[in-house]
Amino acid sequence: METVKVALIGFGTIGSGVARLLLEEGPRIARGAQKKVELAYVVDKDLSRERNVTLPEGLLSDDLDRALEDPEVKVVVQLIGGTRAARPIMLRALESGKDVVTANKALLATHGPELFEKARQKGRSIAFEAAVAGGIPIITGIGQCLAANRIESIEAILNGTCNFILTQMEEHGIDYGEVVTEAQRLGYAEADPTMDVDGTDATQKLAILAQLAFGATVNWEDIPRMGIESLEVGDLLFAQEMGYHIRLVATAELGPEGLDLCVGPTLIPEGTPLAGVQGAFNAVQVVGDAVGPVFFQGLGAGQNPTASAVVADLIDTIAGRSAITFNALNLWSDHDAGGVSARDPKKTPGRYYLRLNVAKELEVASEAARVLKEHNTAIDSLFQYEDPEDAGGAGLVIMTQQTTEGEIAAAVDAIRKLPFVRPGGTRARVAG
Amino acid sequence: METVKVALIGFGTIGSGVARLLLEEGPRIARGAQKKVELAYVVDKDLSRERNVTLPEGLLSDDLDRALEDPEVKVVVQLIGGTRAARPIMLRALESGKDVVTANKALLATHGPELFEKARQKGRSIAFEAAVAGGIPIITGIGQCLAANRIESIEAILNGTCNFILTQMEEHGIDYGEVVTEAQRLGYAEADPTMDVDGTDATQKLAILAQLAFGATVNWEDIPRMGIESLEVGDLLFAQEMGYHIRLVATAELGPEGLDLCVGPTLIPEGTPLAGVQGAFNAVQVVGDAVGPVFFQGLGAGQNPTASAVVADLIDTIAGRSAITFNALNLWSDHDAGGVSARDPKKTPGRYYLRLNVAKELEVASEAARVLKEHNTAIDSLFQYEDPEDAGGAGLVIMTQQTTEGEIAAAVDAIRKLPFVRPGGTRARVAG
Repeated sequence: METVKVALIGFGTIGSGVARLLLEEGPRIARGAQKKVELAYVVDKDLSRERNVTLPEGLLSDDLDRALEDPEVKVVVQLIGGTRAARPIMLRALESGKDVVTANKALLATHGPELFEKARQKGRSIAFEAAVAGGIPIITGIGQCLAANRIESIEAILNGTCNFILTQMEEHGIDYGEVVTEAQRLGYAEADPTMDVDGTDATQKLAILAQLAFGATVNWEDIPRMGIESLEVGDLLFAQEMGYHIRLVATAELGPEGLDLCVGPTLIPEGTPLAGVQGAFNAVQVVGDAVGPVFFQGLGAGQNPTASAVVADLIDTIAGRSAITFNALNLWSDHDAGGVSARDPKKTPGRYYLRLNVAKELEVASEAARVLKEHNTAIDSLFQYEDPEDAGGAGLVIMTQQTTEGEIAAAVDAIRKLPFVRPGGTRARVAG
Repeated sequence: METVKVALIGFGTIGSGVARLLLEEGPRIARGAQKKVELAYVVDKDLSRERNVTLPEGLLSDDLDRALEDPEVKVVVQLIGGTRAARPIMLRALESGKDVVTANKALLATHGPELFEKARQKGRSIAFEAAVAGGIPIITGIGQCLAANRIESIEAILNGTCNFILTQMEEHGIDYGEVVTEAQRLGYAEADPTMDVDGTDATQKLAILAQLAFGATVNWEDIPRMGIESLEVGDLLFAQEMGYHIRLVATAELGPEGLDLCVGPTLIPEGTPLAGVQGAFNAVQVVGDAVGPVFFQGLGAGQNPTASAVVADLIDTIAGRSAITFNALNLWSDHDAGGVSARDPKKTPGRYYLRLNVAKELEVASEAARVLKEHNTAIDSLFQYEDPEDAGGAGLVIMTQQTTEGEIAAAVDAIRKLPFVRPGGTRARVAG
């Protein structure tokens, strides 16, 4: 059996998981790849940190050049995070004629066109199953298994940290700040969880899915995005009262006027698959015109689930499937007319849940309603409650009828300027 | 762009869906396959039946020979049901050097070894995504996407007819017989639904999954199997009271002593993904040692979802991915030592729900408990209720502690022979 040499760049949590699988599960991986897979180089700047895998002597080094310049290395597994260091490494790997497997969603969401063009120039492939939803095979699912379908919509929980935080708040009534601390202690949240809780991570993943499913090249920064930081336990309970669970949902929906994309806290009707997604799980619901709704759920992060996806990509790449898929999908290409365009985000339709902190005055509700009406937004239901922690303060919860992202954003801005409205409050979309 | 000719054998419901996709979605399919796909022959014995697709003049015929003998036909889509006619057609297609795509689970579950050996001899591939769980990409999911994992267990709802019947009984309190009639009217059940409701269909699919995920070659008839015919609305309500939903579940679980397989009505704890599967949906929960639990849900039958899976296979076959996967998986092969063996079904462990129809006598419960104890089965809970429709009759519901399939089957046989036990009653497994 032929042997293929692989270089692993980035020996952090996921890199360690990938190295462990390659070292311990050789026969299974060789069976899938139909070649023996040799981990020939592990490269990281940090040579001293403790990892939960023991490499053979001499495998780990900080010598990137040696790994990328070895002509026997056919595949580079690129697991450096962020974009600054990762981009030149990935370009160099492709330039050296190596296929690349990566888990880096920020890199693809930001530099997809450049990277994929380079790979095409050099006749190489890029595989990225692990970049979206970790262990869930959603890239293969959409790119290969649903290839007969026109994709109509995607609704996805793509950030396990947010989902963990929201389900903890909902189930145990613990405040946002306290849950974040707990999530950090358990390893479900980074020391700096900003990119998770503000929706950046989910938005970058949605930009990749939009390219894959709809051929839409979107700058992830243009996608309307809200985080979960302003949600309070009360919001989750009010939503439950009304038959919803609040989750951070990334949505892509194809309509006659183009593709609507958005990321934010979303009220999901109880009894639907997405509403049942608990803890650190991710989930994706895809609707195809032939297959109907298909729902995937699994662990979207963590060492082993992500390593499972990386090694599946490595097997696909060595066995030859990745090259076929890469050529067929022609992602981030100027030359493909098949793609749809993202619509002006302001036109994205939706119903909304609003909670406002207000002074306990008579005209509060009618004033808010007036401003919403000025922005073509009708109210479905409204209730006001006393804030037990704030004498003279009250909360106002509004469910709107169908409106647009542009109208509701403008309405909320205007409402916040009303004299009786206090800081705080939140806004969430209503699904379905 | 090169053109590949395809012959479609079997122009029933699914065949019509496949033909429609091939005729209407040519550009999308060509993009995926990287070749133009030409539907060159459609073969069926019945030339007159109305179908919901209009074929170009001259495409439909009953001339199987012409289609299979055309050397330009590279792929045969084999959609004849059952095994008697389908087996020789499939063997002939492979013998003529054609790759095969099929949706026929009975054929693979019964003649897998012979068919796969023939394909290997001739250097051809067999793709069968549509044979299990319709539109859910579970064959690719397990065979390709989870290739880095040792699969630990599969729990699956593989028959949409049964799931529709059980959710209707549960939600609307309608009797089994009445729901079956309704399911037939809506097209969710065949005129003769025996193979669905007695668990045959799900068992054949489980045999295929057992081969794919564990390399276990099992005769599907050896898998312990129970249908849903003996369930009553009361069973679903009792289960709900105790926090469970009853579904027809196919289970494969790998333990140190081999693989346990079984199919039957199963109490699934509320709040788990499988418990939420409604109506005609199918679902599969796979646990891999690296990825953890991955859950898939979608439509398991019907014209378009199944055609979606068939055409995905056709694209994979023409693009070249199927041949790679087929060779790597080496399914139903004597030469592969990687497979595990199915354990003696009698040793399959489980907790059980029993409902017995009994005469209202004092010693009923204690006698049943005595017999269970003789078969090493302890009782977790027990209650007796009056049967309002049967003067002097009562029902006895028992939840056992952990026992085995062999012990519970023998115990139930013995209990049924006790003088106070009347015909009827049911037995179901308890998951988790």
